[in-house]
Formats: sequence, structure tokens, C-alpha cells
Amino acid sequence: MNVIKDPRELRKIISDFKKNRKTIAFVPTMGYLHAGHISLMQKAKVKCDILVVSIFVNPAQFNDPQDLINYPIDTEGDLAKCQSEDVDIVFLPTKEDLYPDGIPTIKIEIPSLMNVLCGSARPGHFEGILIVLSRLFHFVQPDIAVFGKKDYQQYKVVDRLVKDLAFPIEIIGSDTLRETDGLAMSSRNARLSEKEREAAILIPRTINLAKKLLDEGERDIKNFKEILQDVLASSSLLRVDYLELVDPESLQPLEKIETTMLLALAVFSGNVRLIDNTLLEI
Amino acid sequence: MNVIKDPRELRKIISDFKKNRKTIAFVPTMGYLHAGHISLMQKAKVKCDILVVSIFVNPAQFNDPQDLINYPIDTEGDLAKCQSEDVDIVFLPTKEDLYPDGIPTIKIEIPSLMNVLCGSARPGHFEGILIVLSRLFHFVQPDIAVFGKKDYQQYKVVDRLVKDLAFPIEIIGSDTLRETDGLAMSSRNARLSEKEREAAILIPRTINLAKKLLDEGERDIKNFKEILQDVLASSSLLRVDYLELVDPESLQPLEKIETTMLLALAVFSGNVRLIDNTLLEI
Repeated sequence: MNVIKDPRELRKIISDFKKNRKTIAFVPTMGYLHAGHISLMQKAKVKCDILVVSIFVNPAQFNDPQDLINYPIDTEGDLAKCQSEDVDIVFLPTKEDLYPDGIPTIKIEIPSLMNVLCGSARPGHFEGILIVLSRLFHFVQPDIAVFGKKDYQQYKVVDRLVKDLAFPIEIIGSDTLRETDGLAMSSRNARLSEKEREAAILIPRTINLAKKLLDEGERDIKNFKEILQDVLASSSLLRVDYLELVDPESLQPLEKIETTMLLALAVFSGNVRLIDNTLLEI
Repeated sequence: MNVIKDPRELRKIISDFKKNRKTIAFVPTMGYLHAGHISLMQKAKVKCDILVVSIFVNPAQFNDPQDLINYPIDTEGDLAKCQSEDVDIVFLPTKEDLYPDGIPTIKIEIPSLMNVLCGSARPGHFEGILIVLSRLFHFVQPDIAVFGKKDYQQYKVVDRLVKDLAFPIEIIGSDTLRETDGLAMSSRNARLSEKEREAAILIPRTINLAKKLLDEGERDIKNFKEILQDVLASSSLLRVDYLELVDPESLQPLEKIETTMLLALAVFSGNVRLIDNTLLEI
């Protein structure tokens, strides 16, 4: 396993692989790797010759400076996990390696997909993601890149970036991995206190209840959302940032129950913001 | 010479060249090729193994629909010129080939470089250029791309796009070629009537006068600009869109005479909008 800091060195190595007709798979991460990341790596590994994983906590996508400071880091543990997954290259740049001239002033926006859900709750978040991923894609030059659907909006936004600008990359979405009690795996879970972790269980329970309500015939979207919100409100540790039913392709909010819907939610447990989503089909 | 319409076919051919360790040079054009384009091709040709020229009148960058309709086209003549310049691949997509899903809704902006000069005079112009070039760069995947400095702002905007998003491409600027009487070469010159062509001579004369005035010691920027504008106003066929002195790097307007300045101007001769610029150094 090759651990590389310098983007120019990475580019040279990748270019040599390509000249030798190797295909490249890429899993971009912010580190503090868990089983969810591992599943992305495994999905990527079988599709290409060379697996590149990047670990970079991207300051450009944090709208809240405190959230950036609190973001968990465990580089040693991450590298050990990459090693056991047979990762070929870990790209581990510093902020100065990745942004030698500071965070670029270019603005990339996909208004219809970004002005909703986490995009409206976290101004600048997706703009920062689009810049870092454009840079990473141009350094790694992968044939495929794998993204977790836990960050469903990110997955759709990146997929649109790639299609609109014709990046020669196939974007693959991978299903959310969950703890045994149903909580979606996330690096942020490490920041939950015992009580906050307990309260967070209401998030997957809300998702399960949503499925049950639809199965039982609930068709009033206002009632439906109110019942779900009431479940989350039952814990004083939780604060709902948003709970939305949106079209899974356009991400636009729905005004009535449709046959295919995405339930997307962002909930603070204590100070930790957790997101989750599920596809609902009638 | 290989003439290719289909972006997927182009990508495959380029990918094969790369596997055979060939380097790729790219000259994007809107066709109606003249000696200025030829000089870009010659500059590109000597730097790489394979020369790709694209010919595509990009609807996304025309803010004025009439201007798009009037844009001159001569595909047969263009292909003959490419053939004589030993171009390896001409990429000649239709609008449907390049934008199969319509013009993308993604927005790319570099506010500081785009809100001035042609950017403020032609809303949406550079946004359209950034989208088409991002797509073209991802299809052609060149090592270098050559741009004429007649479109100086475009050259700077593209250079910034490539740096900010880390495209693995070197952008090379090439000096403006001029007719014997000094008029900058442009496909739009073909649309000038005899009288408009005659009046247009005042544009290079204004540029020459600017150099002379500085040599003679003019240091009052207001006087300086007024004298230049008066020259252009002396023809009733000309209408100045803008005449600006800007910093050559930031493109921000200057408030006093500096040791290095870019004089940039856009002037209508009849209905034809012509641009020109020069670097002024004291």
C-alpha cells in the first residue's frame, strides 16, 4: 500500500498505471473509517485493477467552524483499515497539499439539487464538496467512484456534476450500512454520548415507522410527517433540522404521497448532527 | 485526419492514444478558421504527439440569439484548413452530440474575473464557455490546450478554471494575429461591410495611440481614456461597448496609470461586435 501526500506524485503514479492499461476505482472519504466505508472499498475493489482511497477532512464544505474542529480523526487506525482491505493507494494530503493557493474562489452550483435538504440547512456545504471532488477527480482520474447513499443528496449532486461536466467517471451509489440497532453508520456517531447514542435510535425507528404507516394505508402527507416528527420530538435530546419527503431524482419536496418518495432527515442528537434517508415505495 | 462527431467515439480513440503513451494537444474553436486559429494549431502541434481541434459553435455562450444565428459557418473550408495543418483529429459534434440532455443546469462562476469587461457586457457568456470547455476537456483529455489572447479575458478565466479545479491540463496563451492594417483577426470580421471594415481600423489605431500617449508621458488616466474614446467616436459607424484599463492578472479596473496595464476594448462596427486588447507597459 502506497500512502501519498503530494497530488503531483499521485498524478504521476496514476498516469503510469493508466499507461499500463490499469483501471482505477476511487473512494473519497473524510477518514475515521467504519464498516460503511469498508463496504464502499469492497464494492470499488472488485470493479477495477487499482483502488485509491482519499482521506481528507475538507474545510471548504464545513459551514460551521466548530463542526470542523470537532470532526473525529484517526489516521493510524484508518491506514490499518485500508491496509487490511488491500487498498493500493491512500491519498492523504494536508490542506496545503490540496489547496496550495487557498480554497479556490470558483463557485459551482447545481441550484435545483442544492437549494433543498442539507443544501439549505448548511449554506456552502455542497459548493465545498463540488470543489474538492472536482480537484480529487482530476488528481485521481478514476474510472469509477463509489459514494454512500447515507449521504443521498451528495450522491445525487456528485452524479449530476459528473454528468453535466462530462467527467469520464462512473458514479456508483452504495446502500447505507447500519448498526445492529438500525442507526446508520457515520463517523459522527463517535461523538455521541451514551445518552445521545440511545436517543439517536429514534431516527431509524422513525424510518421504520414511515414504512409501516404507508403499508397500513396512510395517504395524508401532512398527518404522515406529523406522526414521524412526533416520534423524534419524544426525546428531549433530539432536535429535528429537517424531515422531508422529496422526489428521489429531483429532490424537490412532495406535496402529496407518491408511489416513490425519499424520506430524508437531519436530526441533532445533542450537538451532533446526524442524517439518514430511505426510499419509500408503495 | 479523423473527423469525429460522437464524444464517446472520441473518448475511446483518445484513450487508446494515451495507452500508447501519446501526448494530446487541443485547440477548441467555433470554426470559420483564419490565420489566428492556424497559429494556435501550429503552436499546439509542436508541443504534443496528437493535435485535436474542435469546431463547435456553442449556443450556451451566446447571450444574444441573433448573434448566434449570424455566426459565420464554413465547415468544408475549416476541414480543408485542418487537413493542411496536419491536424490528427477534428472533433465536430452537433449540439445534440455535445449536449444530449440539453444545456446543463450546473452553474460555474469565477466572480472576480467574470463580472468585468465582456462578462458584464454579455451576461451568461463566460458561464457558457466554462460549461462547454469543461465538457470538451473531459472528452479530449488533453495535456495542453492553446487559447488566443485576442480573447484575453476568456484565456484568464479558463486558466483559472483549470487551476481552481485542478484539471491536469496546461493552458497556453498565444499572441493575437493581425491583418496587415492592424485589425485583430476574428471570424466576425467576415460579417463586416466594406465601410464597417474600414471604420474598424480605428480599433488598432486606438491601441497604437495608447502606447504613444504613454511613451509621451501621459499619466492622467481620465484624460488618457477620453482621448482614446474620442478616436473611436470619430466614426459614426462605431459604438464603444467598453474601453477599460485593468490589471492584467485580476482584471479589476485601474483608477490610475500603472506600470503594467491591460487596455481592453469592445466596439460595435455596425452590428458586429469586435474585441481587442493590448498589454501596456511603462
